[in-house]
Amino acid sequence: MDIVALQAALRHFAADRDWERFHAPKNLAMALTVEAAELAEIFQWMTDAASREAHRDPALQARIADEVADVLLYLLQVADKCGVDIERAAWSKLEKNGLKHPPRARA
Amino acid sequence: MDIVALQAALRHFAADRDWERFHAPKNLAMALTVEAAELAEIFQWMTDAASREAHRDPALQARIADEVADVLLYLLQVADKCGVDIERAAWSKLEKNGLKHPPRARA
Amino acid sequence: MDIVALQAALRHFAADRDWERFHAPKNLAMALTVEAAELAEIFQWMTDAASREAHRDPALQARIADEVADVLLYLLQVADKCGVDIERAAWSKLEKNGLKHPPRARA
Amino acid sequence: MDIVALQAALRHFAADRDWERFHAPKNLAMALTVEAAELAEIFQWMTDAASREAHRDPALQARIADEVADVLLYLLQVADKCGVDIERAAWSKLEKNGLKHPPRARA
Repeated sequence: MDIVALQAALRHFAADRDWERFHAPKNLAMALTVEAAELAEIFQWMTDAASREAHRDPALQARIADEVADVLLYLLQVADKCGVDIERAAWSKLEKNGLKHPPRARA
Repeated sequence: MDIVALQAALRHFAADRDWERFHAPKNLAMALTVEAAELAEIFQWMTDAASREAHRDPALQARIADEVADVLLYLLQVADKCGVDIERAAWSKLEKNGLKHPPRARA
Repeated sequence: MDIVALQAALRHFAADRDWERFHAPKNLAMALTVEAAELAEIFQWMTDAASREAHRDPALQARIADEVADVLLYLLQVADKCGVDIERAAWSKLEKNGLKHPPRARA
Repeated sequence: MDIVALQAALRHFAADRDWERFHAPKNLAMALTVEAAELAEIFQWMTDAASREAHRDPALQARIADEVADVLLYLLQVADKCGVDIERAAWSKLEKNGLKHPPRARA
């Protein structure tokens, strides 16, 4: 994924609409929780099992893709504003999680 | 960002811990909202202006990076389980947003 | 507030629609986060100061009231399903918070 | 539930700590989503069925009660700041929901 290109496009998008003044990390993080909730809303009354099959319905998959994109776009903007290298942060978190939750022993 | 590598690492991580049975899209989306809230929590009592400066404090920036990573890791897992091409979804959403909110006219 | 009456009405509402099977605490808590996000959405691009004045606009106040009600209705259902006495829990939490954050000293 | 008494106690609590300046509806709504997420977090890896039994474990029930209380305390503060009569809003929403989702026909 070309994060640099996406973040540049998001910066232009905001500048062209004079939205930069709204885009404090606080507001972007708040908007991110709203989009995350819209993604969760798709699955909220499904059983776990049904949620595993949801994307086989093209209309539902399009809705999921739409909300996943909304979350990503705000996440990239938070990272951009806060000088966070999102890919490095992801790998470093994965490593930390590996130490916190060691793989189960195998027989 | 090498999404394919990250998603593969996440799949191995879950498999090594026998967590695949927990990772229904419903549960992953729920965990995503929890991590999004943890990111928002960092900024909740700041003014908008203060949130723009927060990342200049290295300890705060590290916390932000950590929560941004948590959100991304769950987002990549939702996308993976649901067959969503997250980069394509992002560009397509950006285009849709451009039609919905045309740039303001310039003098 | 007559919590017993509200919780009874919610129980009848769910029974009349055969929704009881959807109303696991997990799903209700998930729906609660969605409604909380819809409340937050009203304020997300406002400054803190503007959010203090928002309710003076009757249309906005009606939206706020609506979302506050949605959060409360799910909260009462979670409490009901989990045998939580919500009023007692609130007073006990307030007391705990008082010990955790002692009032500032006065000159 | 004595809402007037709880809201008065919350007002005193904030005043005694000089927190009134932080308590814009925007910030309170944001804090509410954070607490709602902490409630959801308790249930996120449980099956729906397990979440129905969770409160039988006294330690889990205490955690649920704690998070339910946190959500309620912020909700009462949002309602207080925004001049929302929370009990009236709840009954009116219940009525609106009844019109939107009529009870299923019975044979």
